[in-house]
Amino acid sequence: MSEVMVTIDDVLRAERRIAGHAVCTPLLSAPMLDQVLGAEVFVKAETLQLTGVFKLRGALNKVMSLSPEALRRGVVAYSSGNHGIGVAAAAKMAGTRAVIVLPTTAAATKVESCRWWGAEIVTYDPAHQRREDVAEPYMDQGLTLVPPFDDPEIVAGQATAGLEICRQLLARGVRPDVVVIPCSGGGLSAGVVLAMRHFFPDLDCVLAEPAGYNKMGRSLAAGSRQMNAEEARTLLDALIGRIPGEITYSILARHGVRAVEVSDDDALAAMALAFRTLRLVIEPSGAAGLAALNSAQVAVRGKRAVVLASGGNVDPSVFARALAL
Amino acid sequence: MSEVMVTIDDVLRAERRIAGHAVCTPLLSAPMLDQVLGAEVFVKAETLQLTGVFKLRGALNKVMSLSPEALRRGVVAYSSGNHGIGVAAAAKMAGTRAVIVLPTTAAATKVESCRWWGAEIVTYDPAHQRREDVAEPYMDQGLTLVPPFDDPEIVAGQATAGLEICRQLLARGVRPDVVVIPCSGGGLSAGVVLAMRHFFPDLDCVLAEPAGYNKMGRSLAAGSRQMNAEEARTLLDALIGRIPGEITYSILARHGVRAVEVSDDDALAAMALAFRTLRLVIEPSGAAGLAALNSAQVAVRGKRAVVLASGGNVDPSVFARALAL
Repeated sequence: MSEVMVTIDDVLRAERRIAGHAVCTPLLSAPMLDQVLGAEVFVKAETLQLTGVFKLRGALNKVMSLSPEALRRGVVAYSSGNHGIGVAAAAKMAGTRAVIVLPTTAAATKVESCRWWGAEIVTYDPAHQRREDVAEPYMDQGLTLVPPFDDPEIVAGQATAGLEICRQLLARGVRPDVVVIPCSGGGLSAGVVLAMRHFFPDLDCVLAEPAGYNKMGRSLAAGSRQMNAEEARTLLDALIGRIPGEITYSILARHGVRAVEVSDDDALAAMALAFRTLRLVIEPSGAAGLAALNSAQVAVRGKRAVVLASGGNVDPSVFARALAL
Repeated sequence: MSEVMVTIDDVLRAERRIAGHAVCTPLLSAPMLDQVLGAEVFVKAETLQLTGVFKLRGALNKVMSLSPEALRRGVVAYSSGNHGIGVAAAAKMAGTRAVIVLPTTAAATKVESCRWWGAEIVTYDPAHQRREDVAEPYMDQGLTLVPPFDDPEIVAGQATAGLEICRQLLARGVRPDVVVIPCSGGGLSAGVVLAMRHFFPDLDCVLAEPAGYNKMGRSLAAGSRQMNAEEARTLLDALIGRIPGEITYSILARHGVRAVEVSDDDALAAMALAFRTLRLVIEPSGAAGLAALNSAQVAVRGKRAVVLASGGNVDPSVFARALAL
């Protein structure tokens, strides 16, 4: 496996690039949450990021790291979810063209969001076409493909969330014991681990995955990349990618990161807890970290724990299910 | 009417006093919200304040402005709502005693919150007792009464939210055209108007009140303080105080502030809009400002508008009603 390095200098450079475009999101705490969990808990509210999810960070860093010529030609991405929206928004902020390739089965609200940010939408029938084939003519035109996670600039961009957490903790004189991060392809996880271990070398780093779709946990345990089943039945629909990234997996493996699994009910309970104690709207996938604490999968009693609330784009009917608990 | 002055110096002093205890809440914006409203909108998320509402600011400033001897003896407050929680939290942070006088009809969650912050709870039967009589023995013991709004230190404390808004706008180079503030007794309104007019003398300042319970609007129109009806039927249950404060009214009248009325449905629609575009949990009263924009009571097309989202302590069943819209 080729080793692509991402360093703290890459993260610092990413932070300067995206400054003034991405939001420096607050690191929130709540005494009642601390009491419920028996720990000092800090929640990084990426739900308040523009587009409602951390994805903008990596997309912005990637787009803004392009050569002037490549930037002028534009970018292409395929994603039925938040990555497409992030790329669309990043391209708009950078003043260039974005083509988003979406399956005909994509949720209408996601399509609408991409379009809203000014992206061109190209749809394909997932039963009969490969998205790569649909994207190819655009890449032939010179548009740069923005991958969802397995790219050094994407990882460095997502890592800026971790860098901000470090600054916010240091400003309060707090040294954390553990960080818990929702994980799918591993872009956010690898980035945050990279940034936070730089400042806190002994930090316990834990990934939270959907129960039964723990590809990264199984990969880290096996020592090589493992796949998820094709069909996914989980409310944590942003965490069901089939295979970990090569770059992201290698960063997480090198840092000795471990992983836990959370159920739909764990996620809904965490969403209700966040509503009640933090007044935050978190989507099921984004609540995986808090769910890992609240379901005691990660023991934090008496500790200082950081949790990434990675996104807040949730359907009202799903949020209502959490409220009804 | 006696004229009690509150100056920008009082506000700056309050900001220094409460720093490190109250949260400097983010000023959020969202392109989709801007598009819906046809304006550049900035939302001050006091929903993310500790205790979930701006009230902590004034209570903290009042408690921390007491003489060492008065501070040692403690404070007393009567409030069935957020003010009691704010005073309980402020006393805890200042390391002193708080007695909160609550009607037997107070919501269990509010009572629980006051108790959680370490306050002593004293209940009374509102049908047969006056809360002033219940509080009196504690005041005789030397505890200081912390009024909910009509007090210079309370106004200066709430004004810190306005001061933060000014700093946050100036950091982005933005000069606002209008600010809309949920209003009941007028503590937050008077404070924010005071602070923001200092930096932006031409700012249009608008209060948002529950439809039919617009005591401050009627007072400002009549030139003297007017009362609300006793029985209140509105979802905006934090804005139903019977009479404007003397100090707060005089500040608002002097600054030529105007007021609009919002309905329950306006508030619910604004809560749904904030959920969708900002991923914020806002309570009906806290959403009154955004509701005034969204229902076109305040015309903001093409303008730069600031809105206070003053609180987020909402019952899940009420929030579910907004989600179902």
